[in-house]
Amino acid sequence: MTAMKFKPNLERLNALPKQRGLDAVVAMSPENFAYVSGVFILTVGLIRPRQAYAIVPAEGDPTLVICSIETSLAKEEGWIEDIRTYTEFADDPIDALTDALQRKGLASGKIGIDLDYLPATSFERLQKAMPQARFVNTTDDIAKIRAIKTPQEVAFLENAAKQTHRAVLDAMMASRLGETERVMADRIANGIIGNGADGTLFLCFASGDRTPQAHGYATERVPQPGEIIRFDVGGTYGQWASDFARTYSAGNPTALQRDTYAKLRKVHAATIDMVKPGVLAEDVFFFCRDQFQKMGLKFTMPHVGHSFGVELHENPMLRPGDKTVLAEGMVINVEPAVMDEEGAMYHIEDLFVITPTGHRLLTLGLPPEELPSIGQTITY
Amino acid sequence: MTAMKFKPNLERLNALPKQRGLDAVVAMSPENFAYVSGVFILTVGLIRPRQAYAIVPAEGDPTLVICSIETSLAKEEGWIEDIRTYTEFADDPIDALTDALQRKGLASGKIGIDLDYLPATSFERLQKAMPQARFVNTTDDIAKIRAIKTPQEVAFLENAAKQTHRAVLDAMMASRLGETERVMADRIANGIIGNGADGTLFLCFASGDRTPQAHGYATERVPQPGEIIRFDVGGTYGQWASDFARTYSAGNPTALQRDTYAKLRKVHAATIDMVKPGVLAEDVFFFCRDQFQKMGLKFTMPHVGHSFGVELHENPMLRPGDKTVLAEGMVINVEPAVMDEEGAMYHIEDLFVITPTGHRLLTLGLPPEELPSIGQTITY
Repeated sequence: MTAMKFKPNLERLNALPKQRGLDAVVAMSPENFAYVSGVFILTVGLIRPRQAYAIVPAEGDPTLVICSIETSLAKEEGWIEDIRTYTEFADDPIDALTDALQRKGLASGKIGIDLDYLPATSFERLQKAMPQARFVNTTDDIAKIRAIKTPQEVAFLENAAKQTHRAVLDAMMASRLGETERVMADRIANGIIGNGADGTLFLCFASGDRTPQAHGYATERVPQPGEIIRFDVGGTYGQWASDFARTYSAGNPTALQRDTYAKLRKVHAATIDMVKPGVLAEDVFFFCRDQFQKMGLKFTMPHVGHSFGVELHENPMLRPGDKTVLAEGMVINVEPAVMDEEGAMYHIEDLFVITPTGHRLLTLGLPPEELPSIGQTITY
Repeated sequence: MTAMKFKPNLERLNALPKQRGLDAVVAMSPENFAYVSGVFILTVGLIRPRQAYAIVPAEGDPTLVICSIETSLAKEEGWIEDIRTYTEFADDPIDALTDALQRKGLASGKIGIDLDYLPATSFERLQKAMPQARFVNTTDDIAKIRAIKTPQEVAFLENAAKQTHRAVLDAMMASRLGETERVMADRIANGIIGNGADGTLFLCFASGDRTPQAHGYATERVPQPGEIIRFDVGGTYGQWASDFARTYSAGNPTALQRDTYAKLRKVHAATIDMVKPGVLAEDVFFFCRDQFQKMGLKFTMPHVGHSFGVELHENPMLRPGDKTVLAEGMVINVEPAVMDEEGAMYHIEDLFVITPTGHRLLTLGLPPEELPSIGQTITY
């Protein structure tokens, strides 16, 4: 991914400070920084004290403030030319940010920053260093810009989704009864990485009575005939990722299992089909819940999907109370899950982009209409 | 990893509130929560609004406050029996925390919490909900407890380090001239996962003029004979991880490269050898810097290593100003890096535990004394 410079929606980003009546906006959560700067600095998330900031002023050029050891990466990946650095341990990152803001004449400015991410102690230091400045929370303002993907971003996400889907198809086709959850999950992981991911983001994989675990990793458990296998997996692709769930049978599915899966699959397709510009995020949730009830499926989900981009669960979320008007360019995961009467959990998830008239799938296709079994070939 | 219940150092943890004059300590950063609870909830890091808290009171039993969908995982992995849950979106996690603290009679208590992690907006909500309470920052207090590993934790970390080291040896032995960085890096990733990791944590891999990038991922670049290859990789193993760096030649190393590597390897071994209980963290840094100067190597590192556990870079850090007295049971990475006169970067990293009299390596062994080449068999 490093060869292509990613640029955010500059028109909307540059307009943000004035829209909010601010002198500058500072992006510093891992996802807001990655989106605004186009630079994926691994340590922004992994080594949190090594904070990085992208300053977008109302007037003038943007500035990056980063740890000195990330300079060559920022030059290679990023589009922002003014890069200021601090030395880890010698300097506090907040002091470097303060210095950069003051040089921009913002010592008494009104500044937006990610207060939903900035740690309480960092915020205290920032306020003390800039007592004349006022700080407001712009975490969601940047998230709202991120919600509408650029064509370049859709291409990255589609590539990731299709590569991961392909890895899953190949891995589950190659899987056999008698193998452990781990062997199957590792096969998926190797496929995700082999197909182009930088690494794995998560690999939740469970069978039988472990399937209700929302986020359990594979174990040495051997799925038995008649058991459900479900997984929710993702790879990392620069600042982007994949997030993809499927449900299989270990073989010899019961009538209850086939029926439950087929109903879930119908609800899934119908839910995706009702998405188009103008629909409210919460209405997708209510529609999906109604479909569950019509099918006689037990509905327990707090949400039925989410926007997806540089953040795993972005806003809008398909949940009650989220009144975001869905719009062209949003990239959304729908992911219904249901538990059957015997306690097995089913879960399927597909990614799509909202088009002017509806949606376009970014995975290879919807899951099969009938519950697939391990070893089965699924073609698209 | 899920089959074994991890318990933190309960003696030190339970003593913490009284030591600090507190009524309770709340662990809620991803690493402090994972350590205290023994539960690795993936979404605590990946979906940050879904906060999780482990409350350790001065008197009485500990309590977990988590998102309802993680309940079965918390019961399977964790040792804390009192589990309170909140419903995502319907409840604010901070309100659930407030409720749990109030039920414990702590409405006007003095409470330690991870203010180096808690977002500014969450802290504001917490203070408003509990106006009679006082909050102090205990991020580092729990980190100090984490710094001394339990034997169980050392075993987890040793297992991860050895599995990752083995994956690297096998992958680089199988690598050939003409392959891309990506092919080699994917081989390492597959080995890490195949040897037992849940996934990859990071896979920084660079050759030739890309080697100075601190955290660049593999590209389609094909390493050429006479070029340096360096990588810094890690897998995830429940809440633990591996962190391991090596430097290879793509073949036909120059005299400068062989000499630079051999000197770095000597400095590395000497630095590890000087570590024992009683030495100050910063003294390891100064010793390493002196060795660089004696060898005629250019020294530019802000630190030469770090404690390692549920967090990638834990305190103590081997850096100027860290006056932590190193002690038995600490698990440390030493990772010197140097740039040669032609601009190639070399980097090696090994993990060890401090013993009563010195240290014990947790990797399979130190890197070879002479610069290895891809395709080479290295045995331990």
